[in-house]
Amino acid sequence: MEIHELLQKVKDNEISLQDAEKYLKTLPYEDLGFAKLDHHRALRSGFGEVVYCAGKTQEHLAKIYESFSKRKSNVLGTRASQEQFEYVKQTVPDAVYDPLSHTISLKFDEHERVGMIAVCTGGTSDIAVAEEAAVTAEFFGSNVERIYDVGVAGIHRLFSKMPEIQKANCVVAVAGMEGALAGVIAGVVDKPVIAVPTSIGYGANFGGLSALLTMLNSCAEGIAVVNIDNGFGAGYMVTQIYRLAAVKEKEI
Amino acid sequence: MEIHELLQKVKDNEISLQDAEKYLKTLPYEDLGFAKLDHHRALRSGFGEVVYCAGKTQEHLAKIYESFSKRKSNVLGTRASQEQFEYVKQTVPDAVYDPLSHTISLKFDEHERVGMIAVCTGGTSDIAVAEEAAVTAEFFGSNVERIYDVGVAGIHRLFSKMPEIQKANCVVAVAGMEGALAGVIAGVVDKPVIAVPTSIGYGANFGGLSALLTMLNSCAEGIAVVNIDNGFGAGYMVTQIYRLAAVKEKEI
Amino acid sequence: MEIHELLQKVKDNEISLQDAEKYLKTLPYEDLGFAKLDHHRALRSGFGEVVYCAGKTQEHLAKIYESFSKRKSNVLGTRASQEQFEYVKQTVPDAVYDPLSHTISLKFDEHERVGMIAVCTGGTSDIAVAEEAAVTAEFFGSNVERIYDVGVAGIHRLFSKMPEIQKANCVVAVAGMEGALAGVIAGVVDKPVIAVPTSIGYGANFGGLSALLTMLNSCAEGIAVVNIDNGFGAGYMVTQIYRLAAVKEKEI
Amino acid sequence: MEIHELLQKVKDNEISLQDAEKYLKTLPYEDLGFAKLDHHRALRSGFGEVVYCAGKTQEHLAKIYESFSKRKSNVLGTRASQEQFEYVKQTVPDAVYDPLSHTISLKFDEHERVGMIAVCTGGTSDIAVAEEAAVTAEFFGSNVERIYDVGVAGIHRLFSKMPEIQKANCVVAVAGMEGALAGVIAGVVDKPVIAVPTSIGYGANFGGLSALLTMLNSCAEGIAVVNIDNGFGAGYMVTQIYRLAAVKEKEI
Amino acid sequence: MEIHELLQKVKDNEISLQDAEKYLKTLPYEDLGFAKLDHHRALRSGFGEVVYCAGKTQEHLAKIYESFSKRKSNVLGTRASQEQFEYVKQTVPDAVYDPLSHTISLKFDEHERVGMIAVCTGGTSDIAVAEEAAVTAEFFGSNVERIYDVGVAGIHRLFSKMPEIQKANCVVAVAGMEGALAGVIAGVVDKPVIAVPTSIGYGANFGGLSALLTMLNSCAEGIAVVNIDNGFGAGYMVTQIYRLAAVKEKEI
Amino acid sequence: MEIHELLQKVKDNEISLQDAEKYLKTLPYEDLGFAKLDHHRALRSGFGEVVYCAGKTQEHLAKIYESFSKRKSNVLGTRASQEQFEYVKQTVPDAVYDPLSHTISLKFDEHERVGMIAVCTGGTSDIAVAEEAAVTAEFFGSNVERIYDVGVAGIHRLFSKMPEIQKANCVVAVAGMEGALAGVIAGVVDKPVIAVPTSIGYGANFGGLSALLTMLNSCAEGIAVVNIDNGFGAGYMVTQIYRLAAVKEKEI
Amino acid sequence: MEIHELLQKVKDNEISLQDAEKYLKTLPYEDLGFAKLDHHRALRSGFGEVVYCAGKTQEHLAKIYESFSKRKSNVLGTRASQEQFEYVKQTVPDAVYDPLSHTISLKFDEHERVGMIAVCTGGTSDIAVAEEAAVTAEFFGSNVERIYDVGVAGIHRLFSKMPEIQKANCVVAVAGMEGALAGVIAGVVDKPVIAVPTSIGYGANFGGLSALLTMLNSCAEGIAVVNIDNGFGAGYMVTQIYRLAAVKEKEI
Amino acid sequence: MEIHELLQKVKDNEISLQDAEKYLKTLPYEDLGFAKLDHHRALRSGFGEVVYCAGKTQEHLAKIYESFSKRKSNVLGTRASQEQFEYVKQTVPDAVYDPLSHTISLKFDEHERVGMIAVCTGGTSDIAVAEEAAVTAEFFGSNVERIYDVGVAGIHRLFSKMPEIQKANCVVAVAGMEGALAGVIAGVVDKPVIAVPTSIGYGANFGGLSALLTMLNSCAEGIAVVNIDNGFGAGYMVTQIYRLAAVKEKEI
Repeated sequence: MEIHELLQKVKDNEISLQDAEKYLKTLPYEDLGFAKLDHHRALRSGFGEVVYCAGKTQEHLAKIYESFSKRKSNVLGTRASQEQFEYVKQTVPDAVYDPLSHTISLKFDEHERVGMIAVCTGGTSDIAVAEEAAVTAEFFGSNVERIYDVGVAGIHRLFSKMPEIQKANCVVAVAGMEGALAGVIAGVVDKPVIAVPTSIGYGANFGGLSALLTMLNSCAEGIAVVNIDNGFGAGYMVTQIYRLAAVKEKEI
Repeated sequence: MEIHELLQKVKDNEISLQDAEKYLKTLPYEDLGFAKLDHHRALRSGFGEVVYCAGKTQEHLAKIYESFSKRKSNVLGTRASQEQFEYVKQTVPDAVYDPLSHTISLKFDEHERVGMIAVCTGGTSDIAVAEEAAVTAEFFGSNVERIYDVGVAGIHRLFSKMPEIQKANCVVAVAGMEGALAGVIAGVVDKPVIAVPTSIGYGANFGGLSALLTMLNSCAEGIAVVNIDNGFGAGYMVTQIYRLAAVKEKEI
Repeated sequence: MEIHELLQKVKDNEISLQDAEKYLKTLPYEDLGFAKLDHHRALRSGFGEVVYCAGKTQEHLAKIYESFSKRKSNVLGTRASQEQFEYVKQTVPDAVYDPLSHTISLKFDEHERVGMIAVCTGGTSDIAVAEEAAVTAEFFGSNVERIYDVGVAGIHRLFSKMPEIQKANCVVAVAGMEGALAGVIAGVVDKPVIAVPTSIGYGANFGGLSALLTMLNSCAEGIAVVNIDNGFGAGYMVTQIYRLAAVKEKEI
Repeated sequence: MEIHELLQKVKDNEISLQDAEKYLKTLPYEDLGFAKLDHHRALRSGFGEVVYCAGKTQEHLAKIYESFSKRKSNVLGTRASQEQFEYVKQTVPDAVYDPLSHTISLKFDEHERVGMIAVCTGGTSDIAVAEEAAVTAEFFGSNVERIYDVGVAGIHRLFSKMPEIQKANCVVAVAGMEGALAGVIAGVVDKPVIAVPTSIGYGANFGGLSALLTMLNSCAEGIAVVNIDNGFGAGYMVTQIYRLAAVKEKEI
Repeated sequence: MEIHELLQKVKDNEISLQDAEKYLKTLPYEDLGFAKLDHHRALRSGFGEVVYCAGKTQEHLAKIYESFSKRKSNVLGTRASQEQFEYVKQTVPDAVYDPLSHTISLKFDEHERVGMIAVCTGGTSDIAVAEEAAVTAEFFGSNVERIYDVGVAGIHRLFSKMPEIQKANCVVAVAGMEGALAGVIAGVVDKPVIAVPTSIGYGANFGGLSALLTMLNSCAEGIAVVNIDNGFGAGYMVTQIYRLAAVKEKEI
Repeated sequence: MEIHELLQKVKDNEISLQDAEKYLKTLPYEDLGFAKLDHHRALRSGFGEVVYCAGKTQEHLAKIYESFSKRKSNVLGTRASQEQFEYVKQTVPDAVYDPLSHTISLKFDEHERVGMIAVCTGGTSDIAVAEEAAVTAEFFGSNVERIYDVGVAGIHRLFSKMPEIQKANCVVAVAGMEGALAGVIAGVVDKPVIAVPTSIGYGANFGGLSALLTMLNSCAEGIAVVNIDNGFGAGYMVTQIYRLAAVKEKEI
Repeated sequence: MEIHELLQKVKDNEISLQDAEKYLKTLPYEDLGFAKLDHHRALRSGFGEVVYCAGKTQEHLAKIYESFSKRKSNVLGTRASQEQFEYVKQTVPDAVYDPLSHTISLKFDEHERVGMIAVCTGGTSDIAVAEEAAVTAEFFGSNVERIYDVGVAGIHRLFSKMPEIQKANCVVAVAGMEGALAGVIAGVVDKPVIAVPTSIGYGANFGGLSALLTMLNSCAEGIAVVNIDNGFGAGYMVTQIYRLAAVKEKEI
Repeated sequence: MEIHELLQKVKDNEISLQDAEKYLKTLPYEDLGFAKLDHHRALRSGFGEVVYCAGKTQEHLAKIYESFSKRKSNVLGTRASQEQFEYVKQTVPDAVYDPLSHTISLKFDEHERVGMIAVCTGGTSDIAVAEEAAVTAEFFGSNVERIYDVGVAGIHRLFSKMPEIQKANCVVAVAGMEGALAGVIAGVVDKPVIAVPTSIGYGANFGGLSALLTMLNSCAEGIAVVNIDNGFGAGYMVTQIYRLAAVKEKEI
């Protein structure tokens, strides 16, 4: 029962004041208009949903994909293993696995991509995390420029790619070990930089803590950080950011 | 000497190949077109510069403000003490101190503000950090809606303010102690959320570590984190983000 | 406007459906029935409110106490300094300071106390935190038995007090340094034990971390932990626990 | 020999003063009346004992269960593996394994359950820990309401379940990652909340540290914390708490 | 009432069985024969007691010393400030302050010292902690050889003192910064080494953590560690150790 | 060449001053009389040597044992796996494996054991570490009393064993989780207590850190700590301590 | 196109000013003269390149070695597994695996080695890291003296080797556990010491943190530290250091 | 008595064998040829000694300077306060204080400086630490090029200074906050880089830990790290390194 309907019933004496009062007190909040589910739906119109696969049983995952498949709805599964994919594929043959980003995607329609996100990594070992970010951003309708292995230890590599990075609306900087990539890029571009520390490294990297602290303490301006190895979080965040511009465009 | 000028001289035989080659090798990178200084200048056109006051001597600071004053250029000083202000004021009487955000501002012209940034805090003790973010965002031309003391321990306070938060283009969530505010907001709005952990709290908050970890580990999507107590960083980041939309607007 | 009043107006056509709907969507959540303010009020009926004084300005604090004073409402201020009290006292002469627990209390009526909470400390330096717990529990209507300086290093002291501890409905165990007190008590009594680690100690106590970890890792059953030095949290928690029994009593 | 018996013998001159004195000095403390074993026995009357299975050999475990089986005594084994169960089952065919909570239960009689404990989780991955808490509480005679996957990132899910949570006498809040669930619930209900941080998450969750710190630093009142992943500890604690009320009931 | 007395009364029918039983159940444990107070008393016979002064009020401390003074009993106060001493001295003029070890001693008789404890430090800044250890050991009747500033960075200094160290029954090794002194000594002598990490140092010494970890991880055999800066603990421990030998001596 | 021999040669003009000087400058320090090897030899006379097996190849280990076997010299191998033993046994059939303490021992003569070391554990899972301590102490000639599973959570178990513990010359207290055992024992006995934290536990025990900090911060006197899980270190330390007494005995 | 060539073309009017300007702005930085690649090339002339093998696929690695093999260029692969080597060997039969240092080397010419680097370890378990350092230094043309198992716990072993260590130009000190080796050596030699903490140890070594902190906090002068287990980093650093001297030699 | 003198006496029968033997066993190790004091003396010939002033009493410090003054020996005091200097100056008027590096120097002769050390800082707040490094290097005879405020956040500043940095024999990179400066420089120059993390920053810099971890985890080659804020350590280390070259020069 919608609020409107309830109030109408109160007015029409079809429901007692007491019952209406009680109902309102336990009203599910999603009906109040601001719950995420709603704009999620709006956001994903034509894009689809995202499923976190790690820790889910194969049976559970297959049912989820089957459900999306029946609704002809796009879906992106992150942190998926090859084994999970093999099982899902038996039920949903159209599902596609990307071993680099560890994602299972199921797409029924493809939207025109807009804008440009630059996804950069310090080393080649950071690529798995970067691909998760890139694939997520693409899934939500962004163009992505991949610029990998441009760590600051050989800074000429990074600078030779700077023109491409400069063109992007938003930058995702993925780095492990010392994690200085994000700060150096943020010092040179004038776009928001989302920094993703990775757990790549050894010794005193303490599972990504070194890169995390570097990025949080960057003296460069225009940089914010997501969790260690959280490529999806960065991909989603840049989508959120870029949509601000996209919405502007559409509004006009 | 600009690159263009140099090449013209090469063409006109006014400089030897050897000298030109040597000059190019040591060319300050700011002349190459992508260095931050440039777009900084572009960004701040009509806005002004930001000075980090903490640790600077009073004499040094007064000279900096005097220099801006002579150029009739806006300037915002962050982490400034009352003492620093008193000294600066003797030289630059137009400087204004804001004890809440610990900033010294000097403004010669005021720009029309656009957009809307919501700056929220969990408690009243987080307000100093929040004001640094708010004043920074305003300095760079954003409208700011302050929504303070809406921590999740009394979540009805937060939800009664949700309509205002929903209207913003971008949200800054400032919280210490458990730091759950950012995640809860990000779960409800569909705009980018920049989370600022503060060092407010006691016991096992370990100087802001508790709030920092909470924010980094948030399961909500569309959230990125800056350093503990880094209000300026958040204020700058949302400016970067919002400018994407603003630029779009202007371009059309 | 209360929900009841609103619905009555809808029924009586004194408010349009549209306005009523809009009002409900932004209704302060405290009116919906589950928000804390309500049962807070219920809980505190005749007990009063609690104010966290640390970090509040003297002016602010004095106004808060003045407001409670006018309403003849009990109030307990925690983490208050002697200086804050001196200022408040000028406006509210009935306010009383307790230097042991660092609380400012203002009481207009005294309720009969029920039940029994045992508040124990490992050493004499833990007493400030313990008193905060004890005074809080008393403020909310519990009897409190103080059993101080019974740390496990001289375990005969603890055991000679065990009969008193056994009689309590609930135990608060406050200890710094090694923090073993909570586990030893929990192993001997069959009542819930709320453990409060304190920052008392030196060297590798790391600001209370040692006691915190000890308490969290206790192999004894029936123990739960609050933040380091959080006497108020423990005092409130045992009140919550004890009220379960008290409510039972009243219901019959 | 009981104390009473000993004293009788002293009185009757059946034992020398010297021997009686010596005996008393080394008297096992469980006979002194306050040792846990006693009230344990009281508590468990009709409920049974709990065995921590992790790290025990299969042979050892089978003998323990055999012993309980012969005494027709209920027993709950926690942290048990499927392998341990298979082995135990050969000796004790009535033993039942619950793969969700990793428990092996052996029950000869079932008590009427009283009260109501709400066990909530932030995500689906926290369910194993939550089930350990729930099964423990049920084993000791509580009713349990399971409310899973109501993390604060989609807070409407939590609020739609709030009426059920409000009805409980006591709440167990189980969450990993950011761990904000416990604080949000404690801010809304007026019952004791036992918070269980879990090691679920990745990156900067540092094996559950993030959730642990969040819960310890919660600004909500009426919350206490047990060790990371310690579902049993929470289940036992709420039993201790609830028994206060239950005892009251019985007394009348 | 002593146990013996009680039993006699039971035998003589001067006390009822019921009362005797009740008395025994709450009997202070110090009467049972194994409590520390007893052998403390034995240990200190002729030596005196130790008082931890830090955090005690001047009034409290003065009363404690006055009490010992009246009983003509030796007492050693550790972690005492000059201010505390000045106040105590007004009441107890015989009290003596040692600014190096921060101790206030009051001695009425002096015992012959036996054995030999070598107290070594890495640097001159570690001397305060070392003196606390040395003065404690002397207070309890040991001879002490002070060997200061023999850190491993100039290992020839340590080795030139090795003959003295070799002669000791027991070694206390006090060091901050890298804290390697304890391990090197333990590798060369064949006596027990008690290691005391100090908080001396800067940067990544993290308040003594670096020295603590070094000492705990020493590959040398025959070394055990006390808390950071805990000179008293080391002084007491070596006394405990040395008494084993001393007792042997006396027994023969 | 011994120093004495060298000097004789100098005196007899059999060696030039220059050569003697050069020789002295590079003289191996073991010849100077204080190196550990010497008293090691003294200590082990009739006891044997200790080998740390972990990380050694099977071939290497077999050769070591073969060498001891040929010399008819006792040897104790710690941290040895079953696999290592099987391999060693092929070459040295007299070697004996103890799966509890993970040691391989080879004994050709057995010495009369003297004194008494009490080795106590908090739980059954700590027994492996405790056995390493016990077997080491026995190997070096001590009597050992094993008192296991007497953790403070059920403190009556510990106290019923206190008479045995009191009789020991020295106590080794082995505990994981909260690790309070060592402090409680040290508060009751008047003998040196060597505390061994173990990595047993889960959640916030952080690999033994919780027990380590508890033990270091114990307010009980007469306690010192070795590395996490370092049973051998404790066994060796108590041997060092006890030998002080033993030497005394022999000297007389 | 080189800068020189470009300028010539500008002069000769073969390229427009506009095109030249554009070209210069995006010029790969390695051409500007200071990029590492250049002096890398210089450094490695006749030495070869280094490849980090860990995490690389076998196919990828084989192609890299094939490429070097075709160019007859020396290459050193670090952190290589036996499996990686077996695969590479099929394509490049001249590749040689060193199981101690986990390196795959391919050498076409051997340079005369100069200077002397002493590589020392505390224990035998540190040898893998030490060999990585030694093999790296040899690859870049240094003589290496291996001095293993000279930890400070038996310091006579270290001192008996001191004459060899003294002769070296530079020392690499590799140690785990307490990590005191580096400080002791630095206190005795007057050459730069590069310290390498290793993750060898157990308990409170926390993956090498103990040795790392020891080395950073060393009070000895002339010591600097690389990452935990980073043998390659140390080997490269000493090469950098030694080349200063070598270049001097060559220059004359 | 020197070794040579002793041996001569032995030869001449002026000392008994027994006395000579005894003397040699306790001989100060500095005479044995490898002890640091010797090359210290060599190193400092004409340079002087270094005194760590922090924590020394004014009286103590004045005496030390007086002693050097009498011997006409150069001395450099580090970590000295203005107050310490004022006191020293009363006794030794020639002493000079440098408030930037917090050093007190006393120089009687000035040596020609050789080589070139580049000392770089990320920000202006790092200058105090950098100056300690620079002044130390100069004291030991190096030329120093100061290149301050070239942090990676505005990387064009660093690169415009690269030619100067390239010219140096050795680089000291001083940086707080993110600490990326060292890695970026090491990636561009081919000289040894000594990295000094500073405690400058706020929030999650944790007293310099962030910069320390960044520097240790740098993927650039040819970098080693000293303790947080340890400018002296870096200045001494580069002196050690540079002397290798200098010695070479002199030898020829």
